[in-house]
Amino acid sequence: MPTTQPRIEDLFAARAREAVPPLYGAAGQRTTPMISLAYGLADPALFPRDQLSAAAATLLGDHPAAAEALNYGMTFPGLTQQVCERLRRQAVEAEPEQILIGYGSSQILALLPQVFLDPGDTVIIEGPSFMGAVKRFQMAGAHLVTVPVDAEGMNTDALADTLRDLAATGKRPKFIYTIPTFHNPTGATMPLARRKRLIELAAEYGVLVVEDDAYGDLRFQGDEIPPLAALDSDGWVLRVSTFSKILAPGLRIGWAYGRREIIDRLAMFKSEGTTGPFITRVVALYSAEGRLDNHIDALCDLYRSKCQVMVDAIKRELPDVQFTAPDGGFFVWATLPQGMRATELLERAQERGMSFLPGVNCYPDERGNECIRLAFSFQSAEKIEEAIGILGNAMRSI
Amino acid sequence: MPTTQPRIEDLFAARAREAVPPLYGAAGQRTTPMISLAYGLADPALFPRDQLSAAAATLLGDHPAAAEALNYGMTFPGLTQQVCERLRRQAVEAEPEQILIGYGSSQILALLPQVFLDPGDTVIIEGPSFMGAVKRFQMAGAHLVTVPVDAEGMNTDALADTLRDLAATGKRPKFIYTIPTFHNPTGATMPLARRKRLIELAAEYGVLVVEDDAYGDLRFQGDEIPPLAALDSDGWVLRVSTFSKILAPGLRIGWAYGRREIIDRLAMFKSEGTTGPFITRVVALYSAEGRLDNHIDALCDLYRSKCQVMVDAIKRELPDVQFTAPDGGFFVWATLPQGMRATELLERAQERGMSFLPGVNCYPDERGNECIRLAFSFQSAEKIEEAIGILGNAMRSI
Repeated sequence: MPTTQPRIEDLFAARAREAVPPLYGAAGQRTTPMISLAYGLADPALFPRDQLSAAAATLLGDHPAAAEALNYGMTFPGLTQQVCERLRRQAVEAEPEQILIGYGSSQILALLPQVFLDPGDTVIIEGPSFMGAVKRFQMAGAHLVTVPVDAEGMNTDALADTLRDLAATGKRPKFIYTIPTFHNPTGATMPLARRKRLIELAAEYGVLVVEDDAYGDLRFQGDEIPPLAALDSDGWVLRVSTFSKILAPGLRIGWAYGRREIIDRLAMFKSEGTTGPFITRVVALYSAEGRLDNHIDALCDLYRSKCQVMVDAIKRELPDVQFTAPDGGFFVWATLPQGMRATELLERAQERGMSFLPGVNCYPDERGNECIRLAFSFQSAEKIEEAIGILGNAMRSI
Repeated sequence: MPTTQPRIEDLFAARAREAVPPLYGAAGQRTTPMISLAYGLADPALFPRDQLSAAAATLLGDHPAAAEALNYGMTFPGLTQQVCERLRRQAVEAEPEQILIGYGSSQILALLPQVFLDPGDTVIIEGPSFMGAVKRFQMAGAHLVTVPVDAEGMNTDALADTLRDLAATGKRPKFIYTIPTFHNPTGATMPLARRKRLIELAAEYGVLVVEDDAYGDLRFQGDEIPPLAALDSDGWVLRVSTFSKILAPGLRIGWAYGRREIIDRLAMFKSEGTTGPFITRVVALYSAEGRLDNHIDALCDLYRSKCQVMVDAIKRELPDVQFTAPDGGFFVWATLPQGMRATELLERAQERGMSFLPGVNCYPDERGNECIRLAFSFQSAEKIEEAIGILGNAMRSI
């Protein structure tokens, strides 16, 4: 029998001793009176509520699969098949065994450290990048190395230098996390030549490329560029995407495509087993018969128009910032006038009733305070104009 | 640059090098012509399809929360509140911060090793037990110590001996995994005195008690016994339960209640973040206004009657087996006649068109082959009678 009073805290595993605050605090922002351009929420105006409701009613009504949808069972194979077909239309020769459906692509990203990272392992990320993913890699103890992003996405010459330098010290990074199309936060899209170079480097140095393509279906202008997964014949690319931007984030359905050995291991660490038989059937029923494709066309029209509203408003109200209009996605990334700090600007903007994401949130360190991310996805055109007007006032107050 | 050809397999973390087959193979059984009494599937006859459909239609129609349900956001706090209220009715003084909603209780159980287990740590389980949980603990590298179950659940005298012996060798187990009410697989319910003794031992030795109460709401007869969480004032109990048995498994909603420090850490390792805003609102909308309570009453009537059908059929067809009729839950646990092996009986039964779970599947080792688990939850009364008749033929063939 122990002689001192036992404490519950002593039961925690080493990895759990330090409590980390949850990453998912963004939702609370929506209820404030602030016009927030900070987060990449979807536009509720085009949630296909009636058609989703019809899909649920069909499934729960006299559909022969209703009993299976509501009982214990697997992720609906028909949804996996739909993802396969979408991939094949992008020249990715996917088989169902190479696909894992998860609760949002953020779940897939959060599983990567479990499958790939031992203590001290190196991961290459873009600077700036999607902080939800990067924070997960950091939490898992990864050593993060940043490769710069320019107007054409990740700079592959810089990547080559980084890989060579790491190899010289005996380090083989586990994966390169990249958002090659409509990059978050910069909006940049990597051209074909860089994509090919990236795959070559991955194969040469034996590093996995994690292609996060949450936004790729939302192209407003310009020609399609093949996804990294279509350019890779040896399994060096794990492609991750989601129904969040093209249907509704709240349904929580994302997926990964890659080598069977990787998909099997991601599934092994997916703590809840398969992804809900009910929700996967609702999404598949909705998406069938071209409904999802038609919906994506409508979304592209909506986001193109809202992006244009933001671009025009920035040109009018913020003549001193530098930015490039994106060809798709949710964000405009802007560089502030020389010497202005994003965190200071945010305080001024919030006092006046709008908010944005300071660039420093998109780096694992102190960099990025000269940049800001502005999401045009969630607010209406009118609110976007109002918010950029407020931002102009805030800038002039500094 | 590396001189040998790099291999993707070399990128896997140590914990992921050996691929483990998925645990969730049960669903495939349903499509065979076999009458399966093997798995604890819910009875589709009472899935509240119309009311669930109405809840989805209300939410997706003109409900003010539709936009929030479909966008990024948190687990719906109203569902957490409902779980709180159910706990308070069982004399558990729960606060919302003490509750984590997950994708099924199996997700919560699978997260336990992340929060509590360092390599070589000891976990105490019941023998027999729910193998879905135990396999997860095993996969995580836990050292499992088994305490026997009798007609009154876990034998707390044996537990006291086990804890004393472990303490004598300097070992403090991290948690005791128990199913005190309508035990899976034995159906046994732990009386109040043993429950109190279990909590005392947990506090004395500083070990967490994980109370898995998936079946507790499905009582056919006998008086309610307070859950372990109601008997514990110091936070030594983590209570885990689910909407799977009282509503529909395919919705994948379960929950944990416990000390804030534990709940926060479970949330930290829940890879997908919060649990879907849409599905948690559908479940909460359905469950409100007493609908779930009324539904549970109807379920108790249904399962009581099917249990009785099975008990009568066993008495009639299998006079040589020993069993105790449960007061609730999904299962009858039966001991075969002296010398008969469950795995051999299963072969004979399957040849004739029925299946069950051999007891050996409920132990982490070779024990249990003299017992079988028969689920009365899924099949109709007629099919249960037919299956037990087939089982009688199979037994007589040995």
